[in-house]
Amino acid sequence: MKSARAFIDRIVGSFAATNIGRAPAQRRADRLARALRTLISERGEASGAALARRAAALYRGLYGPGRTHFFKVLARDFSPEREAVLEAAQAYYRDPSVANLASLQRVAEPPRQEVFRRMNMAPGGTAMLLELRRALLEESREHPELAAVDHDLTHLLGSWFNRGFLELRRIDWSTPAAILEKLIAYEAVHEIHGFADLKRRLERDRRCFAFFHPALPDEPLIFVEVAFVNELPSHVAPILAPESAVGDPRRARCAVFYSITSCQQGLKGISFGNFLIKQVAADLHAELPNLKVFATLSPVPGLRAWAKKALKGAVGSGEAGVQALREGLLAAAADDHGVPSPAMKEPIEALAAWYLTREWIGGHGADPVARFHLGNGARLERINWAADTSGKGLAQSFGLMVNYVYDLGDVERNHEEYMNRRRVVASGTVERLAKSVEPLLVEKPGRTPTSVP
Amino acid sequence: MKSARAFIDRIVGSFAATNIGRAPAQRRADRLARALRTLISERGEASGAALARRAAALYRGLYGPGRTHFFKVLARDFSPEREAVLEAAQAYYRDPSVANLASLQRVAEPPRQEVFRRMNMAPGGTAMLLELRRALLEESREHPELAAVDHDLTHLLGSWFNRGFLELRRIDWSTPAAILEKLIAYEAVHEIHGFADLKRRLERDRRCFAFFHPALPDEPLIFVEVAFVNELPSHVAPILAPESAVGDPRRARCAVFYSITSCQQGLKGISFGNFLIKQVAADLHAELPNLKVFATLSPVPGLRAWAKKALKGAVGSGEAGVQALREGLLAAAADDHGVPSPAMKEPIEALAAWYLTREWIGGHGADPVARFHLGNGARLERINWAADTSGKGLAQSFGLMVNYVYDLGDVERNHEEYMNRRRVVASGTVERLAKSVEPLLVEKPGRTPTSVP
Amino acid sequence: MKSARAFIDRIVGSFAATNIGRAPAQRRADRLARALRTLISERGEASGAALARRAAALYRGLYGPGRTHFFKVLARDFSPEREAVLEAAQAYYRDPSVANLASLQRVAEPPRQEVFRRMNMAPGGTAMLLELRRALLEESREHPELAAVDHDLTHLLGSWFNRGFLELRRIDWSTPAAILEKLIAYEAVHEIHGFADLKRRLERDRRCFAFFHPALPDEPLIFVEVAFVNELPSHVAPILAPESAVGDPRRARCAVFYSITSCQQGLKGISFGNFLIKQVAADLHAELPNLKVFATLSPVPGLRAWAKKALKGAVGSGEAGVQALREGLLAAAADDHGVPSPAMKEPIEALAAWYLTREWIGGHGADPVARFHLGNGARLERINWAADTSGKGLAQSFGLMVNYVYDLGDVERNHEEYMNRRRVVASGTVERLAKSVEPLLVEKPGRTPTSVP
Amino acid sequence: MKSARAFIDRIVGSFAATNIGRAPAQRRADRLARALRTLISERGEASGAALARRAAALYRGLYGPGRTHFFKVLARDFSPEREAVLEAAQAYYRDPSVANLASLQRVAEPPRQEVFRRMNMAPGGTAMLLELRRALLEESREHPELAAVDHDLTHLLGSWFNRGFLELRRIDWSTPAAILEKLIAYEAVHEIHGFADLKRRLERDRRCFAFFHPALPDEPLIFVEVAFVNELPSHVAPILAPESAVGDPRRARCAVFYSITSCQQGLKGISFGNFLIKQVAADLHAELPNLKVFATLSPVPGLRAWAKKALKGAVGSGEAGVQALREGLLAAAADDHGVPSPAMKEPIEALAAWYLTREWIGGHGADPVARFHLGNGARLERINWAADTSGKGLAQSFGLMVNYVYDLGDVERNHEEYMNRRRVVASGTVERLAKSVEPLLVEKPGRTPTSVP
Repeated sequence: MKSARAFIDRIVGSFAATNIGRAPAQRRADRLARALRTLISERGEASGAALARRAAALYRGLYGPGRTHFFKVLARDFSPEREAVLEAAQAYYRDPSVANLASLQRVAEPPRQEVFRRMNMAPGGTAMLLELRRALLEESREHPELAAVDHDLTHLLGSWFNRGFLELRRIDWSTPAAILEKLIAYEAVHEIHGFADLKRRLERDRRCFAFFHPALPDEPLIFVEVAFVNELPSHVAPILAPESAVGDPRRARCAVFYSITSCQQGLKGISFGNFLIKQVAADLHAELPNLKVFATLSPVPGLRAWAKKALKGAVGSGEAGVQALREGLLAAAADDHGVPSPAMKEPIEALAAWYLTREWIGGHGADPVARFHLGNGARLERINWAADTSGKGLAQSFGLMVNYVYDLGDVERNHEEYMNRRRVVASGTVERLAKSVEPLLVEKPGRTPTSVP
Repeated sequence: MKSARAFIDRIVGSFAATNIGRAPAQRRADRLARALRTLISERGEASGAALARRAAALYRGLYGPGRTHFFKVLARDFSPEREAVLEAAQAYYRDPSVANLASLQRVAEPPRQEVFRRMNMAPGGTAMLLELRRALLEESREHPELAAVDHDLTHLLGSWFNRGFLELRRIDWSTPAAILEKLIAYEAVHEIHGFADLKRRLERDRRCFAFFHPALPDEPLIFVEVAFVNELPSHVAPILAPESAVGDPRRARCAVFYSITSCQQGLKGISFGNFLIKQVAADLHAELPNLKVFATLSPVPGLRAWAKKALKGAVGSGEAGVQALREGLLAAAADDHGVPSPAMKEPIEALAAWYLTREWIGGHGADPVARFHLGNGARLERINWAADTSGKGLAQSFGLMVNYVYDLGDVERNHEEYMNRRRVVASGTVERLAKSVEPLLVEKPGRTPTSVP
Repeated sequence: MKSARAFIDRIVGSFAATNIGRAPAQRRADRLARALRTLISERGEASGAALARRAAALYRGLYGPGRTHFFKVLARDFSPEREAVLEAAQAYYRDPSVANLASLQRVAEPPRQEVFRRMNMAPGGTAMLLELRRALLEESREHPELAAVDHDLTHLLGSWFNRGFLELRRIDWSTPAAILEKLIAYEAVHEIHGFADLKRRLERDRRCFAFFHPALPDEPLIFVEVAFVNELPSHVAPILAPESAVGDPRRARCAVFYSITSCQQGLKGISFGNFLIKQVAADLHAELPNLKVFATLSPVPGLRAWAKKALKGAVGSGEAGVQALREGLLAAAADDHGVPSPAMKEPIEALAAWYLTREWIGGHGADPVARFHLGNGARLERINWAADTSGKGLAQSFGLMVNYVYDLGDVERNHEEYMNRRRVVASGTVERLAKSVEPLLVEKPGRTPTSVP
Repeated sequence: MKSARAFIDRIVGSFAATNIGRAPAQRRADRLARALRTLISERGEASGAALARRAAALYRGLYGPGRTHFFKVLARDFSPEREAVLEAAQAYYRDPSVANLASLQRVAEPPRQEVFRRMNMAPGGTAMLLELRRALLEESREHPELAAVDHDLTHLLGSWFNRGFLELRRIDWSTPAAILEKLIAYEAVHEIHGFADLKRRLERDRRCFAFFHPALPDEPLIFVEVAFVNELPSHVAPILAPESAVGDPRRARCAVFYSITSCQQGLKGISFGNFLIKQVAADLHAELPNLKVFATLSPVPGLRAWAKKALKGAVGSGEAGVQALREGLLAAAADDHGVPSPAMKEPIEALAAWYLTREWIGGHGADPVARFHLGNGARLERINWAADTSGKGLAQSFGLMVNYVYDLGDVERNHEEYMNRRRVVASGTVERLAKSVEPLLVEKPGRTPTSVP
């Protein structure tokens, strides 16, 4: 306790001395910092809610340089004390007693963690902290020292937004407009063109689910859109078509996760997607036993960029045919917005198969979407030609999309293969495609890791 | 990341070697410990919910020695590594960079914190963790090394049960029976004798409020009972009388907080009472402007025990009258269950006034109830003779009860006086009473700290 | 419209003349009657809600002779006008045109129906009308002319409490105490001894459902209690035992409706039981496919009283054995509170079988409970000896209870048999029992109607 | 009962005979009619819900000529029997006993009322009956004999949709989209252009309230839109402007009811508007004491049509100036879509004042909107020039709109004036305007009824 007191006195003192002649924005930030010191003092324990309310009001009044200054103060003055930490670590090293462990943790935890916990007590506190983190991430680009603050906030938010506290809610046409409006604004995969478009996505042959946190009852954290169809889909347009006939959910064989969107910038890096997909798949499976296949129709956002680079550097077997193929693929890759020739279908699909099953960066698959689904234990099932011929689809992946299949009985085993053996579980067709492009990309074929058919 | 991996491998290895020839209960505990190691590994990230469910099932099957063994494993094997901590602390001392701070925090946080966060993902996880802590506290009496586990769990629960996540709910006769039943079971101050008794406490001249956490929607965390009366009450019996006439809340002057009960043993030491009283006072003030006084009618649980000791050692001024008074008080204090003579009213009240305003233990008031209310910023208003003549009331405090007054405009100032100057804010009458007993208790009167009238 | 105006003027006038020298209670009643006339006038259309509120307040202030007087005014002055009715009927007879039918209905409907409809607009109006009818039924015993008012109110309430407006709600331990308390108070079949007793009846091997009306959200209209058991029960005690072990609902074969209670005296004669039982049976069938039998365990309230009379007048075949049997049964019937000798088991059961299958009063079964279930289409399945040995059970039916079985596929056919052919559908055993007692009760056996096995 | 039986047998019989050789649509209608006869028989009492479900399914399958035929059967075969009515009326005339009154009512009530009550027991029954009435009204235009059916249905729906059963709900941006969508579709006064437009009407300086019936939880029956403004508004455009700044509701002086829409064609003629406006005014008054004026901004839909006719036939005082004025007004009235010249402002306003205060048709004000508000007890406060310059506004009323003021303390008195004395309560300005046009419209001024300033 003593060191905490000392710490507070020290920074309160240092502050009083430096608060002369500053700009108004900084003065406001300093006033907030002082308020936060009181907030984490003993006095804060007794008058926590009232002080938190005042601190929240001060923070909400900050902007521009004032806010930047405040973040810097948080980074500089609310970190653990070096001496105290070293002393406590040495004591713990000598004797890992309960008391030494407790004091280690007390001094090693940055005081700003307590700051954030207390700010959360203000009405609307949780929303304010999400907004604070959003702003912090923005400013971190220019001020890398703020990463320390972000580290603490991420840790705290990760703990608070624990899966055990999230509520899965179905979104449908009887959901409040205030929430639907947010879905329209947040949707990141296939743009929703207003309420009428959204309504089609909420008919009985579609489903939408979102996670919510009790402290933010009107704010979806992440949502997934599902379509019930008869077979594994190879094109996204029929799913998105606003005028399509509404099907009978009890006759569908396949549930397609065709869009998944994280909504809160303030929760960046705290992942819910894995939980969401599996929970929704399990729930739908229980409700509609006719559903036999749970799959995605996903983009391959990194394909073209990777292809350009990979083809340029490709050694290959040196055969003439292989060389010609390489030229053709290089030309196709260079035409960023062009519709690829049907003749290139198989080579490009093979390239994609290779990219998704053989390319690893730092122990993870190279493609971000593949990384997410394969890391969750999905299987790479099929590559679909001309599946998304929108400008974005062509630019990213020659118009290709792929299906990842979630087979709930296999996800753990698949995940193990992926994480521990760095092998992608893929269908035989995909595997054959990948193999077919080996002569082009590898000097000595047969040495590369394979996927697991 | 490397050190985390290494840590896991090490303990998984050490475990495999030792798991032969153990009793079934221990084997079960070891199986759980292994599950928890998987749970906090990378694999746990992908299959978190499923693994958490299995771990929860294993924990629920533990009891007796198996559970003890498990807690000991948590204490021993899920603590921070000494070497890693020391290294990280030294690095941070040399260079308090973002990266060094991050790695310090990673190794200084006991891995069991992540264990608890992941267990919370199981359905019913939060309730299970509260039950786990309750059991842990029980076992800690015999196994003090478990305090380290409790320290982590307390820290985590304190963060999760942050005021910002609690929901204040009014409890009335339309509350589900399942919740009312719990109030009857939990009530710790004035026993509730069944539903009929409770019903009287929920009539319109009474109020009851509780804090709930969204993850435990049917479990009150703490509740307070309020009576609307015309003046500051001096006896508790009229408030508790089940047959009393129901008054009009819009004509009452005074809201009495006559009972406040913490419900969850698993949340011991995490305090909500301060927030609850102030929130309820503020809300009632807004709803019923006729309420002018917000006060308690509180026991003085430590009075008699303190009086016995204090009178025995009392030096006093040595005058004959003072000596006689001392004899009388000693006799009264010795008669543990007797109704004190009316002649002793003033001396005993004076003793109580002294006790509540002048006695400090380790920087806090000596009486636990006084400590709570005075620490919250209440004022000690009045001492009431024969206020609670139940056996318990006589035994603890000669039948005395006191009123603490919450004046929302003054609580911060009062709290400051109490915390920083060690002065109790009390009414003039109480202060005079305390002064009157000085000759008995102090050798040289006038030197003791005074309260603030 | 003219005649309505005239009607109002006339009674307003007649009233003004007679309102001198009356007692205060009557004056209050007259004031209310005047208010009601305004209420159903054109002015009432514009200021309906305000006038209804005033009328409601006046009614709530009535009691004793004032209320009686008011009811009499309702009966006398708010009936259709004889001349107007006759004229309209003659016109309609001559020419059943749309206009003539409309004017017939206008004058034939007693104006008090509009009175009640308008009183219903007051806050709490529906509850007030139920209370009004309860009082009216009470007073009708002494004042038979009030039956006309009751006729109108019953018609209106029957229309308002249409099945289409009722809400079926499950009652369990998370139901508000305010509602559970009412169940305890209302239960009419097997007394509920406080909340603890009720709690057992709401465990997972029990169910309770009630109908509610949206205008009375806290008032159950009728409720049924169901027990899940393994086989058709022959005794009620095991079902009611508060300490019994809680079973698994997914393993039960049989759902027993062991208690059904109508709650509102003000809704006497408006029947919901039929809807309730069938809806609950259908819902449980869908939720728990393991349930194969839906049955009651019902009292036979009229058995002993009927037996006394029937045996006295019994002609019988005149054989000696039959005579001896008659003597024995007469003796058993005379011993109102005695436990019948085991030797009498079969004869008494046979008597009951006869009573339930062969005795008709005015086209309906003689026993009121039998009438209800058989009229609903249930089958009389079994007669249970010593099923309810409480004082009431012995007094009413020698301790016998019976099972009625609801086979949802058969209820319509059974109902037809019962209503149109006056035949009770009963099991073979019951039918044989009934047949066996023929020689005692009928001069020439074989001529009586039979039940349908 | 006998006559009811007889009645059923008779019509069942007559039906069996005539059901040969009909078209399929008629056969379906006949099948439904037979089902309805069963439904109102005794059998229907026991199996009501099941039979109602079947009847509902049959009705839902009807269309075109089948439906017409069915309605005709309802009109012809489900009316009271002439002989029975006459007999019962004669008996009641001779002796108005309870029994005679009861049997009169039994035979005078058309059996189709019971038909509708039983159909209501089907799931979705109430919604189906509203739809049935909508269709009935449509067909009544060509088949006037259906008016008898409509008369019964109106009576029943009026009883069921009694104010006491309606729920007032606030509509805001957190209302389910499914309901908001209906508001957009139903709005009849000032078209709502999609969700964005609606959102502006739900901001905090606007309010929207609707009545709902518990049996139709997603169907607004009527809704009113309110704007909080600083003073009595004279133009509608600023209120409707989607981009306008959002004001502070606690600073507004005036609540303007600027749109009120009845939603259900099936409830035509059953009025809720009066209740809605007064309830909303009372609630807003309690919530926002700063609101001093409750008023409308209303169209005058009948003005131009009346003006054309009135001016043509106007006798007038014969003076030259008056004649010129008449010519000018006639020219303005003839130019159906023109913006009237500013020079005509006062004459046209005067014409409107006269129209709204002096013109009576059948005891009611000539203008339908005026009739509604004045009948509710509002005061005609002000006539606003160029208030609604939309095409519709110009065509109906030269662009004029008026303010009706609801002064809750005066509505009863105003209503009395209007209903009993045929006098419109209007402001002094309006009254002077009306007077000013007397020389034009009346031969001998001073003889016309006046309004009440």
